[in-house]
Amino acid sequence: MGGQVGPYVQIDPSVVLGEDVRIFGFANLYGCSIGDRTKIGTFVEIQKNASVGTDCKISSHTFVCEGVRIGNRVFIGHNVTFVNDMYPRATNADGSLQTQANWKVLETHIEDGASLGSSVTVLAGVRIGAGAIVGAGSVVTKSVGPGEIWAGNPARYMRKVDA
Amino acid sequence: MGGQVGPYVQIDPSVVLGEDVRIFGFANLYGCSIGDRTKIGTFVEIQKNASVGTDCKISSHTFVCEGVRIGNRVFIGHNVTFVNDMYPRATNADGSLQTQANWKVLETHIEDGASLGSSVTVLAGVRIGAGAIVGAGSVVTKSVGPGEIWAGNPARYMRKVDA
Amino acid sequence: MGGQVGPYVQIDPSVVLGEDVRIFGFANLYGCSIGDRTKIGTFVEIQKNASVGTDCKISSHTFVCEGVRIGNRVFIGHNVTFVNDMYPRATNADGSLQTQANWKVLETHIEDGASLGSSVTVLAGVRIGAGAIVGAGSVVTKSVGPGEIWAGNPARYMRKVDA
Repeated sequence: MGGQVGPYVQIDPSVVLGEDVRIFGFANLYGCSIGDRTKIGTFVEIQKNASVGTDCKISSHTFVCEGVRIGNRVFIGHNVTFVNDMYPRATNADGSLQTQANWKVLETHIEDGASLGSSVTVLAGVRIGAGAIVGAGSVVTKSVGPGEIWAGNPARYMRKVDA
Repeated sequence: MGGQVGPYVQIDPSVVLGEDVRIFGFANLYGCSIGDRTKIGTFVEIQKNASVGTDCKISSHTFVCEGVRIGNRVFIGHNVTFVNDMYPRATNADGSLQTQANWKVLETHIEDGASLGSSVTVLAGVRIGAGAIVGAGSVVTKSVGPGEIWAGNPARYMRKVDA
Repeated sequence: MGGQVGPYVQIDPSVVLGEDVRIFGFANLYGCSIGDRTKIGTFVEIQKNASVGTDCKISSHTFVCEGVRIGNRVFIGHNVTFVNDMYPRATNADGSLQTQANWKVLETHIEDGASLGSSVTVLAGVRIGAGAIVGAGSVVTKSVGPGEIWAGNPARYMRKVDA
């Protein structure tokens, strides 16, 4: 792989790492794929069935859950959290702990060249278009068009990215 | 205990762990109690005098502070933060560092079967009722009734959970 | 230094630590300076060219980026995130990964005795005045005057701190 991996990492053998990936330590990765030259900050967890493309930056303290598809050249700020279940519960009606069989993962797509600011929360099932920007601290509840800037809680359309 | 503990954990001997607790690594726990079959995600800190019941899920990047009482079958999303002091200061008027003696911990209660979405912040002293749901990215400043759904910053009442 | 350092830390030799600094573990620090008697919680990253004064508390899960200047006796809550780039991108127009040469760091100043609540996000280039308080869960987009209380997303002026 020719990459670089910092200390205190738990990288499951199921992870598919591209060439020259850099992982700065304190990472928990399993069942995901990470594209060439992508950088992963500290205190990041990326779950199974999540994918990150090439030339991305995934910044510290970020959580990428199952069902998230991140394209190429995407910037994900610090402390970004993805959601894949709109009505999470710990247990079923019969009191048993929920397992994978008890929820449907909604896919979330972050298209090429988009940027998510720090502390953004992205709800399940949205699509963030190519080159779009989401402002820091926003909660994204709807899909964002390509080249658009959105911000707020809930995030709202602000304007187009300058061409 | 019959549980499972991942790598890179700091679990103080003062922690009371129930049966079959699973801790996925990168955890910092001290002086708290964790009930049977509860799962604790990565990058989680749970402080002293916090309690978590049975069959709960505490997801990654979450911080549970002193004075938080979490019931049974509670779902706590990723990146959830509890607060126990409304006017925090680093130092006293005389410039000395504040210690435990300098603040009053307000208790926060999360009742059985409630769910807190990811990136939720819960202010000191509130009560979240049984079966309630708080939407992702919300800041909870008031108590939430049983079976109610709240969302936003500050969180507001949305509707009842479907029966 | 006479301080105390917990387990699982990555503290680069470039870090300047004052006397009696306490670091509780799971920390990633490089190129920064930390003043005397300051406490650093778990899961904290502090980047190069950031400075923290004396007698501060930097709580768990907080990210302090390059260009942040924190004074003395400052309280930084849990899960606080600073931003130093308003239009972050992963790559340049030619597709190459961005490096230090490709962005201008905006300085952020947190003056003596200020308190930032938990889950606060502070945008690039603002100044938070001496003794000011920012409420938990706020997104700070403008400068906050000395002794003022602000809250919300975006944060707005609420009132003066009681004298």
